[in-house]
Amino acid sequence: MSKKNAYLMEEMSWLEVEEALETVKVAVIPVGAHEQHGPNLAESCDAVRAREYSKVVGERMYPKVMITPTVNFGISFHHLNFPGTISLLPETMISLLRDIVKSLKHHGIEKFLFLNSHGGNEATLDTAIVTLKEELGVKAAHIKYTLLAPEAIKKHVKSDSSGHSCEREVSEALYLAPEIIKQDELTQGEVKDFPYSLTMQNKGPIKVTYDFEEWTENGALGDATKATKEFGKELVEESLTNLEEFITDFIEN
Amino acid sequence: MSKKNAYLMEEMSWLEVEEALETVKVAVIPVGAHEQHGPNLAESCDAVRAREYSKVVGERMYPKVMITPTVNFGISFHHLNFPGTISLLPETMISLLRDIVKSLKHHGIEKFLFLNSHGGNEATLDTAIVTLKEELGVKAAHIKYTLLAPEAIKKHVKSDSSGHSCEREVSEALYLAPEIIKQDELTQGEVKDFPYSLTMQNKGPIKVTYDFEEWTENGALGDATKATKEFGKELVEESLTNLEEFITDFIEN
Amino acid sequence: MSKKNAYLMEEMSWLEVEEALETVKVAVIPVGAHEQHGPNLAESCDAVRAREYSKVVGERMYPKVMITPTVNFGISFHHLNFPGTISLLPETMISLLRDIVKSLKHHGIEKFLFLNSHGGNEATLDTAIVTLKEELGVKAAHIKYTLLAPEAIKKHVKSDSSGHSCEREVSEALYLAPEIIKQDELTQGEVKDFPYSLTMQNKGPIKVTYDFEEWTENGALGDATKATKEFGKELVEESLTNLEEFITDFIEN
Amino acid sequence: MSKKNAYLMEEMSWLEVEEALETVKVAVIPVGAHEQHGPNLAESCDAVRAREYSKVVGERMYPKVMITPTVNFGISFHHLNFPGTISLLPETMISLLRDIVKSLKHHGIEKFLFLNSHGGNEATLDTAIVTLKEELGVKAAHIKYTLLAPEAIKKHVKSDSSGHSCEREVSEALYLAPEIIKQDELTQGEVKDFPYSLTMQNKGPIKVTYDFEEWTENGALGDATKATKEFGKELVEESLTNLEEFITDFIEN
Amino acid sequence: MSKKNAYLMEEMSWLEVEEALETVKVAVIPVGAHEQHGPNLAESCDAVRAREYSKVVGERMYPKVMITPTVNFGISFHHLNFPGTISLLPETMISLLRDIVKSLKHHGIEKFLFLNSHGGNEATLDTAIVTLKEELGVKAAHIKYTLLAPEAIKKHVKSDSSGHSCEREVSEALYLAPEIIKQDELTQGEVKDFPYSLTMQNKGPIKVTYDFEEWTENGALGDATKATKEFGKELVEESLTNLEEFITDFIEN
Amino acid sequence: MSKKNAYLMEEMSWLEVEEALETVKVAVIPVGAHEQHGPNLAESCDAVRAREYSKVVGERMYPKVMITPTVNFGISFHHLNFPGTISLLPETMISLLRDIVKSLKHHGIEKFLFLNSHGGNEATLDTAIVTLKEELGVKAAHIKYTLLAPEAIKKHVKSDSSGHSCEREVSEALYLAPEIIKQDELTQGEVKDFPYSLTMQNKGPIKVTYDFEEWTENGALGDATKATKEFGKELVEESLTNLEEFITDFIEN
Repeated sequence: MSKKNAYLMEEMSWLEVEEALETVKVAVIPVGAHEQHGPNLAESCDAVRAREYSKVVGERMYPKVMITPTVNFGISFHHLNFPGTISLLPETMISLLRDIVKSLKHHGIEKFLFLNSHGGNEATLDTAIVTLKEELGVKAAHIKYTLLAPEAIKKHVKSDSSGHSCEREVSEALYLAPEIIKQDELTQGEVKDFPYSLTMQNKGPIKVTYDFEEWTENGALGDATKATKEFGKELVEESLTNLEEFITDFIEN
Repeated sequence: MSKKNAYLMEEMSWLEVEEALETVKVAVIPVGAHEQHGPNLAESCDAVRAREYSKVVGERMYPKVMITPTVNFGISFHHLNFPGTISLLPETMISLLRDIVKSLKHHGIEKFLFLNSHGGNEATLDTAIVTLKEELGVKAAHIKYTLLAPEAIKKHVKSDSSGHSCEREVSEALYLAPEIIKQDELTQGEVKDFPYSLTMQNKGPIKVTYDFEEWTENGALGDATKATKEFGKELVEESLTNLEEFITDFIEN
Repeated sequence: MSKKNAYLMEEMSWLEVEEALETVKVAVIPVGAHEQHGPNLAESCDAVRAREYSKVVGERMYPKVMITPTVNFGISFHHLNFPGTISLLPETMISLLRDIVKSLKHHGIEKFLFLNSHGGNEATLDTAIVTLKEELGVKAAHIKYTLLAPEAIKKHVKSDSSGHSCEREVSEALYLAPEIIKQDELTQGEVKDFPYSLTMQNKGPIKVTYDFEEWTENGALGDATKATKEFGKELVEESLTNLEEFITDFIEN
Repeated sequence: MSKKNAYLMEEMSWLEVEEALETVKVAVIPVGAHEQHGPNLAESCDAVRAREYSKVVGERMYPKVMITPTVNFGISFHHLNFPGTISLLPETMISLLRDIVKSLKHHGIEKFLFLNSHGGNEATLDTAIVTLKEELGVKAAHIKYTLLAPEAIKKHVKSDSSGHSCEREVSEALYLAPEIIKQDELTQGEVKDFPYSLTMQNKGPIKVTYDFEEWTENGALGDATKATKEFGKELVEESLTNLEEFITDFIEN
Repeated sequence: MSKKNAYLMEEMSWLEVEEALETVKVAVIPVGAHEQHGPNLAESCDAVRAREYSKVVGERMYPKVMITPTVNFGISFHHLNFPGTISLLPETMISLLRDIVKSLKHHGIEKFLFLNSHGGNEATLDTAIVTLKEELGVKAAHIKYTLLAPEAIKKHVKSDSSGHSCEREVSEALYLAPEIIKQDELTQGEVKDFPYSLTMQNKGPIKVTYDFEEWTENGALGDATKATKEFGKELVEESLTNLEEFITDFIEN
Repeated sequence: MSKKNAYLMEEMSWLEVEEALETVKVAVIPVGAHEQHGPNLAESCDAVRAREYSKVVGERMYPKVMITPTVNFGISFHHLNFPGTISLLPETMISLLRDIVKSLKHHGIEKFLFLNSHGGNEATLDTAIVTLKEELGVKAAHIKYTLLAPEAIKKHVKSDSSGHSCEREVSEALYLAPEIIKQDELTQGEVKDFPYSLTMQNKGPIKVTYDFEEWTENGALGDATKATKEFGKELVEESLTNLEEFITDFIEN
């Protein structure tokens, strides 16, 4: 990625952080996962995307936001039967986020944005922000950033089932982090009928416990072979434009 | 409500439960809340609706489901500045659900459906079912049952902001539990501009911590004066038809 | 509102609670259980009795006390081998009570009375009030309300073993909530010799872990067929008179 | 080893324990406290009495019971305003007892008796035995041993308020551990009116949070100057005789 | 009181503690263990040594330190396969220490020294002091007191593997608490090759999970038959001299 | 770093992990921190060093070990007054490690090595391995890898106080990750007298709570201007040679 100005805590000394804190209003905490992404992508996919997208946010919102190190594990029990997947318990993730937020509050930051790349983290992050407001009196928000790019997704995603290791996710990777793509292995998802009607897997509102292999044989959805760097770029740009609007509101109110 | 056949655990002796367990495949756990509902409704609204709707589910799915006592507190910190609201911490609710599920598993039940009436519980229930599958090896699902009636809602809800103490919720109450309505106080929500664009309050995907009084002065959204028993009935019937389809799948797979 | 005046939170809107808080000094929290009560009673017996008795307390002490929703699960592991029983872990109940008390403290209440109907909850409530005083700085008390009616019990209970689904408990139900009685099934307890001398079961002071089926075959003690509404009324009235004395002291000191 | 035969774990090597385990059926765990006992006694009073009484139990029940090291802190928040008192949270004590029981279960013991000298521990011990049965599948009992000597107490205690640093407790100390008595300081309790009727302090069944200085100015109840070694001996002997009966049952069933 | 002047809380009434608190600046908390010590020593060895050594510290530092009751269980999972060993979980010990420190802070003490006799406790104590500083704002230190006597150890220990039930530990016992020695059983450790190079057992820095029987057949290291009271005295004196220096600094800064 | 063969989970798909698991015997988990490192280094220093050193371990021990994603936060409360430092509670880190180990155990791995770069993590890791053995039955080890290079350190470190952002740590960075060095800011540590004799800071064995600014004004020890890539290389090579010996033993036993 680029060498534009951005407050990336991983690259800064305490003297540099001290200076940054004069203008920084929001800490952006990238939250990913370490879980199988079919044959198409390295298991660090969500952690890497959260980190790389957050870097661009850091550039766009400079000098008002600071990007923390990445939370590189997430809630991934439903992928655990695919080798290599690592899952946190929700309560572990909340403890981890609490400690990060408490430390940053000690440094004077009072607003926090969890920048999430993994659907499995959403409920835990929702629970976390409610808990952190109650316990620490901070303001907090979270967003799965791909939800901020509905136009790009509507334009480019043609598969019936998508959302994991599909043309959308591989396109993002082509733009943000091509090194995590297994170029020679790109394959369509081997999607199976999911037996419960009206559940999330069938575009309904019901949530049910499941293992990902009940939904797809090879761990992927959609069609990774349709991925393009252009789609990735459009998605990221649309998402960024929308996110910038929110962060501006978040800083001002 | 009715006197049709339904396995309502609150009304049964252990001998009756023992007999019911010969056919019961799913335990339905009504999950509500105790929180302000503007001038229009008693604070028990969500607990009562969850309980009453579940009773109808019990009748519809008899003798395959059993209805447990209601979880009558929920996650309601955002309503806490309105007198009388009581909120659980998410971890408390999960402990409570774990104990209920563990006890029922001891009696031989292996599938659980949390029937939820309160949006603020969704993330915690999502977290709960993942945790319970991991810890106890059970199958579990949850649904905010109003999400299963999109047609009725589209037809009847005309307000811009809705979802709490609005025409939809009061209509449900007219059909399911008229005793919780403050008939002489029915008032429109005194909705205010919510300052963060793209957040849930503005129909966007971002979640941010807030207090409900930042959104509505009197604690209500929408327009309770537009509520009708007919809308309530249509909503419940549409939801039930959809839910029956899911439960049937849930039992068979 | 109830027939007589009483502040029952389940029936009140936030505006009504706001007004009530001008005179309310004590929150009364009914604490019950969901557990087998032999062939004689529905499993919700303790929750229903705690709720109904508390309503009468609300009337008697109006406008100085407010009655919260009922805690409808208790500590019932010793009944778990009878189908349908649900038990909380003590730590779950304490978390639940802590959240309720914390919410009510936010609304300005500083004194709390746990009104208990189930012997199995006593140790946990004792632990809870000590913990809540230490953590939240509130005043709290608890009482199993039948202990406040020694005269009525001495007069009416003739069985050797009693205290669960016996003539005393069914009499209370006849007076407070006849709908939970299985009128056609009323049966004597099938009491067995309890093998440990000097334990609570043998009227001694030693507490030992046990399963209720070691004490009674059908889950009942005493003789439910001897129950009368009159005994129920006497018990409730005696208890209320005593409790009123305590609450008056509790408010004034 | 002690003067008489007794399996006191504090004095044994692992080889001696290994041999003892061939006959031992019950582990006796002395549970005390470290809290103010007025001017009359050292603050270790409860820990010392639990330990010394347990030693005699060890002799009486040799070779069937083994005495563990003493739990020398208890639940004493109500004494905390008297200098030197140390109190555990109930959850800390339960964790401590769980670890002790788990370790002993590893060595093959399956029955546990908590021998308690302090009223403030009773609810926590009650909670503990229920929790330990549920979690570890062990049998457990607890008793405040002075409750097993009603005759001696009835005969010798004449004070109105007693139960802490009174003639009963000092008499026990005279018999079991005279070194903890402050012989030159023996004083009557400076008892005050306790403002809540029907509470434990006024011989009623209601439990209310309080600080001990609300009940007695100098931290003592009763009249320590009336203590005699004879009373102590009678109390211990009566209690032992009763306890032996229970332990015999406990071993056989 | 003890022979010489020392503030030993176990022996003091609250009136005596109140007076002592006028000069006391540091609470010394003896932390031991209950675990096998080969054929040579009673299992209470570490608890007894921590207690006895602390008494001498109390005399030496009178009237500036106060000695609390002993923590008589420690982290001993690696000894659990030897009969009689009892181990706490690290989190249990931290809860216990937190409660002790919180109580003493209530009495006005702000500096705490955990005086430790058992290597297995060191990591937990290190974790504890960091946690207690963060949570309670107190100053805390810990030391395994034998580490303060390098000269005596270098002079007297000749065995290759030592540190548990060896000539060093039995020498200490000869000086501090001869009653815990099994004089007729004194035996050399039956030490085995520990299979992992560079681990602590082989004088390297790597820590690996293990069971003590992998290191020594009879549970002892070194050579207990070489123990002398003189070595014990030299060790204690050297350690005390060093500790006095630290405590003096700790009080003044 | 290099492109030699190594099983780096961050770069692998589940199919690649599946294949690797045929030969892998040990999971290596890099554990770092995010804390101030004076003016000389980025705050990610410990996380980066743990990650980069572990990669080399992965190459050296290929195909027998697999390297997990890095734990990029550690126990750093003592650095919290320097802007940007983030600290976990010890219990949070243990929960995180437990979840990682549990997931990997699900994939068939039974031996775990925590490769640590930060002194502040040592006690927590020690506690973690004991806890994980007890709870999950796994074998686990941990090492601060610089402790395996005593020769290189003795040869190159000349400063009186060292161990944090000193010539040793900057030399490592020069060899492993030069991008984290602030080349233009390299400065000597501004070390102050630490007031407690015999503590770790004064090369003694006593551990005391402190804030790092009590020890060094600018957050660094030693003399970063003396750092050389050669020292870094020698240190890493010596450490690797020793670690290889341990891992070989760990696999075989």
